[in-house]
Amino acid sequence: MLYIGVDLGGTGIKAGVVNERGEILSKVSAPTLRERPYQEIIADIASLCRRAADEAGVQMEEICAIGAGVPGICRAGVIAFCTNLFWHDIPFVEEMHKYIRKPVYIDNDATVAGYAESIAGVSAGTQSSVFLTLGTGVGGGIVLNGHPYSGAHGVGSEVGHAILKMDGEPCTCGNSGCVERYASATAIIREGRRALEKEPDSLMMEMCGGDPEKLDAKMVIDCAKAGDPAAKRVFEAYVHAIAATIVSIINLLDPEVIALGGGVSKAGEFLLDAVREAVKPMIFMKDMPYARIELAKLGADAGIIGAALLGRTAQ
Amino acid sequence: MLYIGVDLGGTGIKAGVVNERGEILSKVSAPTLRERPYQEIIADIASLCRRAADEAGVQMEEICAIGAGVPGICRAGVIAFCTNLFWHDIPFVEEMHKYIRKPVYIDNDATVAGYAESIAGVSAGTQSSVFLTLGTGVGGGIVLNGHPYSGAHGVGSEVGHAILKMDGEPCTCGNSGCVERYASATAIIREGRRALEKEPDSLMMEMCGGDPEKLDAKMVIDCAKAGDPAAKRVFEAYVHAIAATIVSIINLLDPEVIALGGGVSKAGEFLLDAVREAVKPMIFMKDMPYARIELAKLGADAGIIGAALLGRTAQ
Repeated sequence: MLYIGVDLGGTGIKAGVVNERGEILSKVSAPTLRERPYQEIIADIASLCRRAADEAGVQMEEICAIGAGVPGICRAGVIAFCTNLFWHDIPFVEEMHKYIRKPVYIDNDATVAGYAESIAGVSAGTQSSVFLTLGTGVGGGIVLNGHPYSGAHGVGSEVGHAILKMDGEPCTCGNSGCVERYASATAIIREGRRALEKEPDSLMMEMCGGDPEKLDAKMVIDCAKAGDPAAKRVFEAYVHAIAATIVSIINLLDPEVIALGGGVSKAGEFLLDAVREAVKPMIFMKDMPYARIELAKLGADAGIIGAALLGRTAQ
Repeated sequence: MLYIGVDLGGTGIKAGVVNERGEILSKVSAPTLRERPYQEIIADIASLCRRAADEAGVQMEEICAIGAGVPGICRAGVIAFCTNLFWHDIPFVEEMHKYIRKPVYIDNDATVAGYAESIAGVSAGTQSSVFLTLGTGVGGGIVLNGHPYSGAHGVGSEVGHAILKMDGEPCTCGNSGCVERYASATAIIREGRRALEKEPDSLMMEMCGGDPEKLDAKMVIDCAKAGDPAAKRVFEAYVHAIAATIVSIINLLDPEVIALGGGVSKAGEFLLDAVREAVKPMIFMKDMPYARIELAKLGADAGIIGAALLGRTAQ
């Protein structure tokens, strides 16, 4: 059984042929050019699917289904919201069917990435997992009973907008204190800059060439690794926020695995070890087993793989 | 099909025969006398099951299964923790089988109560719901795909110990800022007393006979209803905490229904209307449908009904 997975982003579209085990057989891409009417973008997605099949040396007849991961909210074949593309109520599946007469599935991009990890990545072989993308924002992918979970109205799995610190930092969503405000790369940068105001002699100042506007999350983490006290404090507060988020997820959903992905997870074992240590004393039922905390494995391919496998699940 | 449900509490044990639709046909009870060895308590539970059948005028042969709701953590037929009874790793099912040779199921009490609401209560007919018991603490009952959900290790569904305000009020669980610290009756009392320190001329002082130690959650809510400014502020902060908890649940799990039960929910429409109003502006995807927020319906019977229906689910 072969599937095509599409990873639709604000800048680029990627597509690939994926087999049942979640292995990628081909990978092609094109720019999104998001200012265009959605009809044109979706026509391009359909072409890209054919190119992916060509590239893999397979006929379209061999493809069972097409899946797409979208940075937004999907419901019943329609993209209800996609902020990056300024899309609202776009009949994605209907539009795709103008070009390709195969089953087409869509879901949120973080959800499909988490699903990919649960089939072919770090949580392979588990029935329940929560995937966190620690990037500019924080995305979540929940897998329950072996299936991607987006809730009854398609608005679930938004871990980044669970409230971690009621009445805390104002969030772009209109609320305050969302997970995203403390557990994203953006939070590391914000706190790094705040630290530099008080401690301008921190190594972080050197790293950003004396311009805090140029400070990024990697610089802060590298300075923490190097032992800079101000950067260490920022990193520790960041780890505490991730740990508190993970503990909430454990106390609510108790999955088998919690996988950390996204840009910040490139800090690797340095981050993972710190998060595991921070979670341990915060566990509610201290003598009971709880979720393994791991680094995601599939990186940027998770989007294509998970989207493709939506077709497998649906069967 | 008939089932027996057992509601095991620190003070009393209740049992009843329940039919497939979640209707109670008989109800009997006995004191727990929790200082006794667990073997004696479980022997009493088995006797109580027989009495429940007698009371309903049915033979034990007509009973398909027995279920028990326990204030603690259950896993594979064993009660891993039950703080109220000082129980730890009690082989409940094995012990019950010494007296009654029928399938026996156990789960957390809030979980079975939520399950009962999803079959015979306010969320009847839905596949996904989250039940919140707003009492001395805050309990949670998650139902997904029509089944009670306790997670991979049996430690999920502890909504009261999700973190709502990182680094906030210290919690009995060892963490800080748990939902329970802001959304329980205990929180209303704590904040009512704090308010009285600053505003001793509040109506709350009259209600508690001049002794803040005697203040309870109902008094605070009644004073808020009567328009007392200090009590209104306490109530509004309480409603805000419940709303923030609900918004987190929606953004993570997006269930069809969120049901409010437990002692505080006796405040009825006064509470419900305030919570619904507070949730509305906090919704992430404002144009999308989201969970109905409702008052639980089954009251104290939910424990027996949900426990009994564990047997139905398992078949």
